[in-house]
Amino acid sequence: QTFVRVNRIQTQKWFVMFLIGAVVALIADMVVIVVDEISEFKYGRLRDLFDRCSTTSGDCLVQPLGLWILMNILPVLIGSVIVVYMSPAASGSGVAQVKCFLNGVKIPQFLRVQTLIAKIVGMVGSLTGGLAVGKEGPMIHIGAIVGAGISQGRLGPFDFHVFENFRSDAEKRDFVSAGVAAGIAAAFGAPVGGVLLILEEGASFWNQSLTWKVFFCSLVSVFTYNSIIGVYLDRPGDLSNSGLVNLGVMDNMSYLVYEIPIFLLMATFGGLLGAIFVSLNVWLTAFRHKHITSRVARVLEVVLIAAVSATVGFLLIYFIDDCQMMRDVTPQRTVQMLCSDGEYSTMATMLFQTSEKSVRNLLHDAPGTYKPITLGAFVIAYFFLACWTCGSWIPSGQFIPGLLIGAGWGRLVGIGVMRLMPGVSIDPGRYALIGAAAQLGGIVRMTISLTVILIESTGNITFGLPIMITLIVAQWIGNWFNSGLFDVHIKLLRVPLLDWEPPPLSSHLTAKDVMSYPVYTLKTTESVGAIVDLLHKVTHNGFAVVDEGELRNPLSDEPDTFGQMRGLILRSQLITLLQAKVFDQRLDIAAVRKRLNIQTFRDAYPRFPSIKSLNVTEEERRYTMNLTPYMNHSPYICYLTTSFPRIFKLFRALGLRHLVVVNNRNQVVGMVTRKDLAKFRVEMHRGKIKVEELHISNELRATTLTKGFP
Amino acid sequence: QTFVRVNRIQTQKWFVMFLIGAVVALIADMVVIVVDEISEFKYGRLRDLFDRCSTTSGDCLVQPLGLWILMNILPVLIGSVIVVYMSPAASGSGVAQVKCFLNGVKIPQFLRVQTLIAKIVGMVGSLTGGLAVGKEGPMIHIGAIVGAGISQGRLGPFDFHVFENFRSDAEKRDFVSAGVAAGIAAAFGAPVGGVLLILEEGASFWNQSLTWKVFFCSLVSVFTYNSIIGVYLDRPGDLSNSGLVNLGVMDNMSYLVYEIPIFLLMATFGGLLGAIFVSLNVWLTAFRHKHITSRVARVLEVVLIAAVSATVGFLLIYFIDDCQMMRDVTPQRTVQMLCSDGEYSTMATMLFQTSEKSVRNLLHDAPGTYKPITLGAFVIAYFFLACWTCGSWIPSGQFIPGLLIGAGWGRLVGIGVMRLMPGVSIDPGRYALIGAAAQLGGIVRMTISLTVILIESTGNITFGLPIMITLIVAQWIGNWFNSGLFDVHIKLLRVPLLDWEPPPLSSHLTAKDVMSYPVYTLKTTESVGAIVDLLHKVTHNGFAVVDEGELRNPLSDEPDTFGQMRGLILRSQLITLLQAKVFDQRLDIAAVRKRLNIQTFRDAYPRFPSIKSLNVTEEERRYTMNLTPYMNHSPYICYLTTSFPRIFKLFRALGLRHLVVVNNRNQVVGMVTRKDLAKFRVEMHRGKIKVEELHISNELRATTLTKGFP
Repeated sequence: QTFVRVNRIQTQKWFVMFLIGAVVALIADMVVIVVDEISEFKYGRLRDLFDRCSTTSGDCLVQPLGLWILMNILPVLIGSVIVVYMSPAASGSGVAQVKCFLNGVKIPQFLRVQTLIAKIVGMVGSLTGGLAVGKEGPMIHIGAIVGAGISQGRLGPFDFHVFENFRSDAEKRDFVSAGVAAGIAAAFGAPVGGVLLILEEGASFWNQSLTWKVFFCSLVSVFTYNSIIGVYLDRPGDLSNSGLVNLGVMDNMSYLVYEIPIFLLMATFGGLLGAIFVSLNVWLTAFRHKHITSRVARVLEVVLIAAVSATVGFLLIYFIDDCQMMRDVTPQRTVQMLCSDGEYSTMATMLFQTSEKSVRNLLHDAPGTYKPITLGAFVIAYFFLACWTCGSWIPSGQFIPGLLIGAGWGRLVGIGVMRLMPGVSIDPGRYALIGAAAQLGGIVRMTISLTVILIESTGNITFGLPIMITLIVAQWIGNWFNSGLFDVHIKLLRVPLLDWEPPPLSSHLTAKDVMSYPVYTLKTTESVGAIVDLLHKVTHNGFAVVDEGELRNPLSDEPDTFGQMRGLILRSQLITLLQAKVFDQRLDIAAVRKRLNIQTFRDAYPRFPSIKSLNVTEEERRYTMNLTPYMNHSPYICYLTTSFPRIFKLFRALGLRHLVVVNNRNQVVGMVTRKDLAKFRVEMHRGKIKVEELHISNELRATTLTKGFP
Repeated sequence: QTFVRVNRIQTQKWFVMFLIGAVVALIADMVVIVVDEISEFKYGRLRDLFDRCSTTSGDCLVQPLGLWILMNILPVLIGSVIVVYMSPAASGSGVAQVKCFLNGVKIPQFLRVQTLIAKIVGMVGSLTGGLAVGKEGPMIHIGAIVGAGISQGRLGPFDFHVFENFRSDAEKRDFVSAGVAAGIAAAFGAPVGGVLLILEEGASFWNQSLTWKVFFCSLVSVFTYNSIIGVYLDRPGDLSNSGLVNLGVMDNMSYLVYEIPIFLLMATFGGLLGAIFVSLNVWLTAFRHKHITSRVARVLEVVLIAAVSATVGFLLIYFIDDCQMMRDVTPQRTVQMLCSDGEYSTMATMLFQTSEKSVRNLLHDAPGTYKPITLGAFVIAYFFLACWTCGSWIPSGQFIPGLLIGAGWGRLVGIGVMRLMPGVSIDPGRYALIGAAAQLGGIVRMTISLTVILIESTGNITFGLPIMITLIVAQWIGNWFNSGLFDVHIKLLRVPLLDWEPPPLSSHLTAKDVMSYPVYTLKTTESVGAIVDLLHKVTHNGFAVVDEGELRNPLSDEPDTFGQMRGLILRSQLITLLQAKVFDQRLDIAAVRKRLNIQTFRDAYPRFPSIKSLNVTEEERRYTMNLTPYMNHSPYICYLTTSFPRIFKLFRALGLRHLVVVNNRNQVVGMVTRKDLAKFRVEMHRGKIKVEELHISNELRATTLTKGFP
């Protein structure tokens, strides 16, 4: 019947993957429909009001401007208040946290139900509020929460007692990966891109059967999303849509070899601009950590951003004269604004729609649709708005802003090339696409996954090669100055994230140099008082169990067991044991032992009570506990002489949290944790490598909750 | 200056990646141009001869038929003779061997220069000989050899003394990965697909910096390939081509939800047919191992296949009446054959061109081009021919035959759907694509990489979702019956390949159950005679070095060192030491030690002399060698109680070859090698799991060379 069990668990896994994909897609559908409807209403009203005004004098502009600001502030306020007061972990995009989580670092509150609710509401608020944000980042976070929630069979405080086999860190991580991939798949219509992104940003071991399941989950997500959106768009049965962020299919594009140098220059520019974006944002983050610390201040900042966004938009429209004649190739919904009859304002048209529609327009509109001045002013304004918004206390994605900025200046380059070579027919949309890739690549520094995502969301494969080259160059240039946006923020928060490879020049270090010493060990049979005191004293999560038997006759064949390594026990296991009062001196100890099985430990996962909440009487303190039946008898170990790179690879490839260091007699002499390894970080700065020993935060909980990720 | 060194090595790596990509692409260009020219000539002649004959009676068909058979036999004979007599490792596709190599198993002769030459010549022979083979498999093998050769700075016996830092198994494996990806990138114009394939089939640890380099290498390959082929096709500067196996861009395809069930049925059929293909091929392989063992017989079999291929083709054309009227949408080069004037034979048209052109035609030709009888007969004949050819002694790829068979019956399904639903406009090319995916997926059981390869080589992203679903279902169905083609052959040859995950139900096994016992150990200072005897006696590649000091005073603080683990030394290191005669009793031992540095070990890599070739005098046998300075002081170890899955993960994630098992006193008690783990294999058979203990070959060299991979 063990065969049956294996099969059943496998079937359950596929089923959970299916559920995750479907639920993530449903949330994506819901968000996109709600945002679409609200935006339609909002921008429709604004278009009407502004258009009505253009016929009379300029004074009447005050009322629509006021309404615009109000319509920006209101949803943003709601979103921000919910995030700040209900679940601060829901702010930002969530990509950085996902990266940490998949790396093996737990982020408090990151996967809770209230975070999910706050994220969805906040996301709708920031999108309909007209902030310079996208929805892909939040969709990644939502996917992660859905993956964790469904696989654990829990919703907030309710336990449905299903899928109990999946209640461990490793299993949960697998399902979170799947949820993330499903989120990207739904967001961009890019199932392959989703799988690649979790590989590029998160997973360390390419596990084939997991990858298939993740792929399946992404597929279900795209399929479900498209089915429903097909009904919403009155094209039921048509599954050929591409995702939430529909960049539109770009057909019939080809490129010639002389364009490659132009693309390379654009990639360089994108990398530079991306590095500037990151640096500015780091400075801003430091400012926020210092000055915007109260809850009210945080909400107010977001509201201010919303108001400024509307005002800047208005000023752009007002001061830049970019009226265009109505033509056949004109975009659908134009705004007349201050232009004469038969003309329309391109700036207003670009601003009175969601950001991703603007990206689509920049990629697809016919040559001559935009004036250079419009594009230039728009890009500069949007660059600073996006940089300011990034890291404020509301859900926000950085992908769409990156694409929009890049598409803007990319199209500008396209117009320039057209003017330089008047004879050749050039589609500026092509340059907009390369610009978008260069800009986004310069900010986030992803390559493979981003290439595939852009290929999948534009439905164009011919342009794959130039996009890849652009992304690689943009990444090189950007990395010359600083790290990618998410990495920089992870470092600012002192998260013990492990890089892909051990730092160079670390091969002379050994376990002896990096291990924590002295270590706290427990005896195989330990007094309850000692355990409780130890748990109170230190915050470590794993303890070596040693056997401190006396020296035996050295001439006997029996092994001497002086202080030798016996096993590893986790803090959570000790607490569960203390809770169940598995004390050797109890009369009913056999019955207690029998009741305590793997189920007990699973039910407790992942919210173990604090040691402070446990009640241990003075008498119980004198009892003992036998840890042998519960500890891990063969944890991974290393010698004092094991080299740093070898230890690093062990942690990274196997996702370890603790590694016991033993001497030549197998006696415990130290312990290596992620923090000990993460201390050594390599900095590439203007082509120089530098190894530095970081101070890694002991208080991850406090830091992440009060400071926030982008 | 260590910083400078790190930077220099990094730069060197990128440069080597560039070289690999460029050289692989150049070889691909050369092959495709040579094959194109020869095929043009061959089929042009045949078309002319057969067309001239159609005007007179049937008797005159004998001469062109004879010429056809001759033109098939000649190149195949040359290719086969070179492969069989010069380098048997060049036969087959090479995909299975690449899989083994990336898994950490060395395949003898697989990466030699003569194998490269034999592969290229044999490949041109099999392709121009009209066999049912493709060129993608051989391109993968060629990529692997180029990657290994360039990175080691060696060409056959010549050592250029460059890139000497890369002379280790791990580094070499990285460059081989890159070469493989470049091969696929050039073959299919699929750089992303190439990266994914090495991940899906080979690599175990997703190393980000390696993946970027591999990606870069693929890009260079596609770029170089396209630049040169652009010149060849008189379109210099146009880089929009897609690869060697150009399936043609499929535009404007969309699909509706009711088509999904049809696709699912096709996937099921493809999986079934794939499983039959694999089973037939396994039976054939067993037959070959038994009866076709001499070199002459091997060459003759290939020649027979070539002759039969032509004859079957002729019979198909002769007996199947499928004359079609010439129309606007008719393919370019038609053959009149036995048809009346103004008509042409579709069968002859399909046969008188290279296989991949046939695939392209099946995907793109207008509805009504093919009669069902043509497709049916063609598919049946080609299925058996492809199955027979697979595993014979000539380079052959299985991708194109798989695609062609599938495209054939897929188009048949398309025609059926058209007849069932006369009102709807249906493109049978769409069904041909799904059929191709289903068939190939059923044979090779890849999913993610194959999806991306098909997307990239058809340049169509919309169809990604149905292709993925088709591939996943085809894989499920196929796996119900047997493993994929390459896996089956790897198992037949008893290669100690490690699966992705430890077999289920193995968690009750511990190191004690799987380790080799007793083990041969060496002392830190060991007599030369003992070392030589041991190396003669056993074929192991790694030995534990122990310290057999006497028992010390148990009350002292000094560690007792009775038989304790001290380190691990490799066979190759011992042989290098013996060669250099690093004996403690020599008077000039200090000078000898000084001369012996890492360079000595690198220069010897990877062709260490056999122990039999070493001369050790009787006097030298009495000398001793101190192994301490040369051994690995901190190899990975595990306890007797460590569980099997944990050991398995250690091997798989870190690419280990040996793991020393120690007891609680850190004394060596056993050794686990890949073979010990690979013994336990899981068989999924008709939905049942079974764990079996295989006999793993000790004589890999002999087996692979005499039996051959597909």
